[in-house]
Amino acid sequence: MNDMTNKWIGQRTIRPDGADKVTGRAQYSADTTMPGMVWGKLLRSPHAHARIRGIDTSKAEALPGVKAVVTAKDIVEFPLDKSVMLGIQDMRWMCRNVMAREKALFHGHPVAAVAAISEEVAAHACSLIEVDYEVLPHVIEIEDAIKPDAPILHEWNQFEGKPSNIAGTMVLKAGDIEKGFAEADIVVERTFTTRPVHQGYIEPHACTVSYAADGRVTIWSSSQGQFMVRAMTSLLTGIPQSNIRAIPAEIGGGFGAKTIVYLEPVAVMLSKKSGRPVKMVMTREEVQRATGPAPGSLSTVKIGAKKDGTIVAAQGTFYLQAGGLPGSPLRGPVGCSFAAYAIPNVLSVGYDVVSNRSKVAAYRAPGAPHGAFAAECVIDEIAQALGLDPLEMRLKNSAKAGDKAIYGPTFGAVTFKETVESIKHHPHYRAPLDKNPRPGVKRGRGVASGFWYNAGGESSVQVNITEDGNVLVTTGHPDVGGSRASIANVVAELLGVDHGRVNVMIGDTQTIGFSNLTGGSRVTFASAMVATAASEKVIGQLKERAAKIWGIEAEAVKWEDGMALPAGDNAGKFPPLSLKELAAKANEMGGPIGNQTQLNTTGADPGFATHCVDVEVDVDLGIVRVLRYTAAQDVGRALHPGYVEGQIQGGVVQGIGWALSEEYLYDSKGRVDNASFLDYRMPVCSDVPMIEALMLEIPNPKHPQGVRGVGEAPIVPPLAAIANAVHDALGKRFYALPMSPPRVSARMDEAN
Amino acid sequence: MNDMTNKWIGQRTIRPDGADKVTGRAQYSADTTMPGMVWGKLLRSPHAHARIRGIDTSKAEALPGVKAVVTAKDIVEFPLDKSVMLGIQDMRWMCRNVMAREKALFHGHPVAAVAAISEEVAAHACSLIEVDYEVLPHVIEIEDAIKPDAPILHEWNQFEGKPSNIAGTMVLKAGDIEKGFAEADIVVERTFTTRPVHQGYIEPHACTVSYAADGRVTIWSSSQGQFMVRAMTSLLTGIPQSNIRAIPAEIGGGFGAKTIVYLEPVAVMLSKKSGRPVKMVMTREEVQRATGPAPGSLSTVKIGAKKDGTIVAAQGTFYLQAGGLPGSPLRGPVGCSFAAYAIPNVLSVGYDVVSNRSKVAAYRAPGAPHGAFAAECVIDEIAQALGLDPLEMRLKNSAKAGDKAIYGPTFGAVTFKETVESIKHHPHYRAPLDKNPRPGVKRGRGVASGFWYNAGGESSVQVNITEDGNVLVTTGHPDVGGSRASIANVVAELLGVDHGRVNVMIGDTQTIGFSNLTGGSRVTFASAMVATAASEKVIGQLKERAAKIWGIEAEAVKWEDGMALPAGDNAGKFPPLSLKELAAKANEMGGPIGNQTQLNTTGADPGFATHCVDVEVDVDLGIVRVLRYTAAQDVGRALHPGYVEGQIQGGVVQGIGWALSEEYLYDSKGRVDNASFLDYRMPVCSDVPMIEALMLEIPNPKHPQGVRGVGEAPIVPPLAAIANAVHDALGKRFYALPMSPPRVSARMDEAN
Repeated sequence: MNDMTNKWIGQRTIRPDGADKVTGRAQYSADTTMPGMVWGKLLRSPHAHARIRGIDTSKAEALPGVKAVVTAKDIVEFPLDKSVMLGIQDMRWMCRNVMAREKALFHGHPVAAVAAISEEVAAHACSLIEVDYEVLPHVIEIEDAIKPDAPILHEWNQFEGKPSNIAGTMVLKAGDIEKGFAEADIVVERTFTTRPVHQGYIEPHACTVSYAADGRVTIWSSSQGQFMVRAMTSLLTGIPQSNIRAIPAEIGGGFGAKTIVYLEPVAVMLSKKSGRPVKMVMTREEVQRATGPAPGSLSTVKIGAKKDGTIVAAQGTFYLQAGGLPGSPLRGPVGCSFAAYAIPNVLSVGYDVVSNRSKVAAYRAPGAPHGAFAAECVIDEIAQALGLDPLEMRLKNSAKAGDKAIYGPTFGAVTFKETVESIKHHPHYRAPLDKNPRPGVKRGRGVASGFWYNAGGESSVQVNITEDGNVLVTTGHPDVGGSRASIANVVAELLGVDHGRVNVMIGDTQTIGFSNLTGGSRVTFASAMVATAASEKVIGQLKERAAKIWGIEAEAVKWEDGMALPAGDNAGKFPPLSLKELAAKANEMGGPIGNQTQLNTTGADPGFATHCVDVEVDVDLGIVRVLRYTAAQDVGRALHPGYVEGQIQGGVVQGIGWALSEEYLYDSKGRVDNASFLDYRMPVCSDVPMIEALMLEIPNPKHPQGVRGVGEAPIVPPLAAIANAVHDALGKRFYALPMSPPRVSARMDEAN
Repeated sequence: MNDMTNKWIGQRTIRPDGADKVTGRAQYSADTTMPGMVWGKLLRSPHAHARIRGIDTSKAEALPGVKAVVTAKDIVEFPLDKSVMLGIQDMRWMCRNVMAREKALFHGHPVAAVAAISEEVAAHACSLIEVDYEVLPHVIEIEDAIKPDAPILHEWNQFEGKPSNIAGTMVLKAGDIEKGFAEADIVVERTFTTRPVHQGYIEPHACTVSYAADGRVTIWSSSQGQFMVRAMTSLLTGIPQSNIRAIPAEIGGGFGAKTIVYLEPVAVMLSKKSGRPVKMVMTREEVQRATGPAPGSLSTVKIGAKKDGTIVAAQGTFYLQAGGLPGSPLRGPVGCSFAAYAIPNVLSVGYDVVSNRSKVAAYRAPGAPHGAFAAECVIDEIAQALGLDPLEMRLKNSAKAGDKAIYGPTFGAVTFKETVESIKHHPHYRAPLDKNPRPGVKRGRGVASGFWYNAGGESSVQVNITEDGNVLVTTGHPDVGGSRASIANVVAELLGVDHGRVNVMIGDTQTIGFSNLTGGSRVTFASAMVATAASEKVIGQLKERAAKIWGIEAEAVKWEDGMALPAGDNAGKFPPLSLKELAAKANEMGGPIGNQTQLNTTGADPGFATHCVDVEVDVDLGIVRVLRYTAAQDVGRALHPGYVEGQIQGGVVQGIGWALSEEYLYDSKGRVDNASFLDYRMPVCSDVPMIEALMLEIPNPKHPQGVRGVGEAPIVPPLAAIANAVHDALGKRFYALPMSPPRVSARMDEAN
């Protein structure tokens, strides 16, 4: 399937969710209602840090219209001394994030929940709940949290023998770091900070839950994995998975953050206690205050190189901000920052730091942008110091097939160089740039690269043939980036039928086999793989039936253009049998035609990206504008190029926000001061140019269509690429993000 | 699995739909609503027979609030001269039944439909539609319809060279009927009539349909087959099956009548035209006037026997009343009436007669009760004339394995005798009966037998193992008689897990493979067969994984009590691995555990039943009361005895209604005069005694659990059994049903 003569693979086919989304028919998580439904609301902590000495819910329970009140007592407790992992989630932290137990750990941390006949009554009831708080000193920033005298969030947590806010570490090593630096001609060491940034999905968390009289639960919610919703809700409520049906709604953005639950277990317990279906919908303010952003970071990167640009040693120290409960994505910066390069001596260390902010959640290539920001800026600085082209320096140091990756495995094909070279030869990189176009304005160009692991994992699919010879496909993954359209292309191609005859849908936890999260840039990779396996089994059934009709062996039948044809010695002996004809004969030939395949897929080799950006800085106003952006990435095979471009463009836009404008502002009480899209400044259309996506299609040999994960790598380079461009414009390096107007202005004032 | 030591098979486990149904949470077809939804209403013909010269919908369309008007022009036309069959349905008739085309053929026949913002506006708009009718003479009864000068419904239909209301015939023959009668010592020939009776399901037909902007359709409706809904709607609207998702609601009774569509194609076209979701809900009156009852019948049966009771010849002539369009279930009386008996000379002929009544629909063992009523009464009369016990006469003539059935195949095991013997030896049949208990009251006892084909056919199932080691099963069949509970028993048994850990659900047309109708007494037979196959494949996966863990061959692993155990030489060498343990390791051992199996099942041998009934006749009032009822049937294997009993009891109760009280009353204009449950007299609790179901479990060797179809055979004997009992009480034979108080009184008066 890897040639370019495909009919559907590689086509920009009409997206199957398009009409529903533009006409408003698509059902998102807040769009489900049920007869007798009541509304759930969370009471949230008004304190950034407080011990909960007691909760008196009696007044709330007595309020007319209140049907149930839930506190941490109703959620399954996972004791602090024993880790229970579900994927990468530690249930000790999740149970305490869903509902505060011993302590409220951030402003907005849920402490109780009410179900009532209206949102207003529920909110009023929340105000009647009396929580006996012992308010404690709080700490927000990493720098403060790791000070010896910092307020300690979790007294039981020890680091180096003392109570600490450092809740975990990760170390990767190669060679001898000291020896490496000793061999270097140049060593640059810099410290960088990034701020927590929110995933900014348009759709707030919401769910409708029905706990029936027989203990069976139905959950409608949008998420990046209905099976994740089922599993986490099962663990947090004690209800077996077989009694929970999680139905995925259309998802209005997730970007990693909808791989965990906030509301579902609480709504289940409210529904169980009230005997009513319960609906919970977060406000935008709740989303901004109390759902996981990406962590902030404090990173020090030290790189040593030879005069010719050969990197001989790299050291990274990455503090990530977990929020109120542990769980920073340390493998992001620790494993990815240097992974694209063949460096003999590496020491990469990460620290998971808790502070009184909302607990972080996964965000597109979790942790990788933080590390790449530091490493790719230092590489830029060294290249400049050595008088080297920054792309040449990257090419010189590129990892290659057979190298042992810092994070463990030995690389197969490494297509990093191809991304660098495609930028190097692109008109964008070769175009002249007027660095002083007009007074008060400076322009600059920057490049940076990025690495992301990508993943395979569990995926299930059904392919069923209708009686009229059309095709139904059900997958187990919520579609966040076009997986339905891509799978339709694959199945149409394999079965040789028109794309419009293939209808792809997402099953719920009852109607499709287990399928892991939509995340890790895995879903198109994994689901195309299982859809291929299932389609091939269906073709096998079709060939067997044609063979039976013709009285020949199944091996003597080939499937081409949606038809069974006699092949070999039998070629031309019988008229072809179309899918429609074989479907019409399904009954008499053994029964319905279809297959369910489930696999734990492997072979998802990593993703590499190299970006080039031109910026313009308004020196007086401190505004950085992105003028031109080109993003090259090895996408393996673009099953649906429109969606692949969209993934690349979306990742870049989010990186632009991270680099230039997004941050949380806290007041002195530890409360978020900009909990709205008006004040939390994400890029809008007018902030970004058309982003050119260079899709390098170097087929992944481990995948039937050559697919490589796409979604995450594009968010890794932008932070550094833009910082390098700003440096090129101003001659000044910014080590702290965002490079927002106040910060840029301050830096310019400081320079004057 | 056929021993009696099973843990779950054969248990009266808690029904999975119970809590939902008693708490009102179960969703029936009228329970779905959608945002923006409008209401559809049908305009129905006020005439029993009229040519439609034109329809002017302009005034209706102009009414504010009206969103769409649909007539036959919007429904795909199947030309009269070419049969297009979908299963046993001819689309020529269905398209004209859903919406009158050339003619209105019965009072209540739909002629147009309106979608509007409320039911009231829709109804008002219907009243504004101007239909130019040419009213024609009508005919209601079979006797009238077959007269030479009868009004002809379909001028194009010819019988014996002339336009006729006889629209089809079916003939089965064996031996030489004339020679047979010539050999007989006694010949009895009688003519019988039965009246059309309605299936009387509690839930009227209803649907909600959404036609989206991209042409994809979702249908929520209750039916005996979501795939049937999809296929028929596809044919009647021209929309490919892959664009139609039919979601089955819980079903409030069907009994065969929900194997066809009335509303769905109309609602789809209203939704397409209006751009709105459309809901249509029939009233009870509409159900009674315009949905299919079982046909009425006019049957002549002639049986010749030797003095010892050996039947040497049997002849049946069965006229069935199709309603306004052809399609009587001729194979019911023609094939079943004599099938339980080994008779050397048979001639069985059926006639499909149209008249101006609503088109018939399938009703539990379609056509078989009509034939059995005639044949079993004649056998009773002969037995009496010869002084034989009626059961002994049946035993003497019972068909046996290897006999060629009148309808074609050669019998495998024939378990008819066992049903007769179980009644013969039952205390009921042996109990003394006081035939004159008090003045004005007579009592009598009757027996009769019945035969039904049973069926296999297409069935699909998914069995998936959750990560916590529980079991999810999805089947493709609406559950009308406990199939979910039965399948849960089977899967729990095979996998060796607690019944409560198995959750069975019904999938929609997108999420499960093609599964044929719930009908023909096939669903528990077929779905237990596919569920067994799928469970065995899952067990195979589990054994392979255990083998891999232990480093032994999969063949050396056995599955017992929900655990993999090393067997043979390896027995005891490794501790067992439970389903929970293997499920927890699914990821590392190759991925999710599950299977979809789809089969066209075979081996559904026929069902036999013999019933015994005691009745009491109030001679003055003409009331026949059923005092005691015992129904013996070979059920093969009762996977869930509670449901099997329920099927037998339900069939008998419907037979009692048919025999004693149910009939349509027509006025002189050809309009139904009793279109309500108040006036159409179905049996209620106080009309029936506890019905004893004798479940003979003679395993069907062609089924893994020994299952034999159950649901239809029990409605076959009651009509004759009760008529025979009334004869025993009064010494008078009733040849016309129902034996309702007015008829019984009239007969008594006539006798006096």
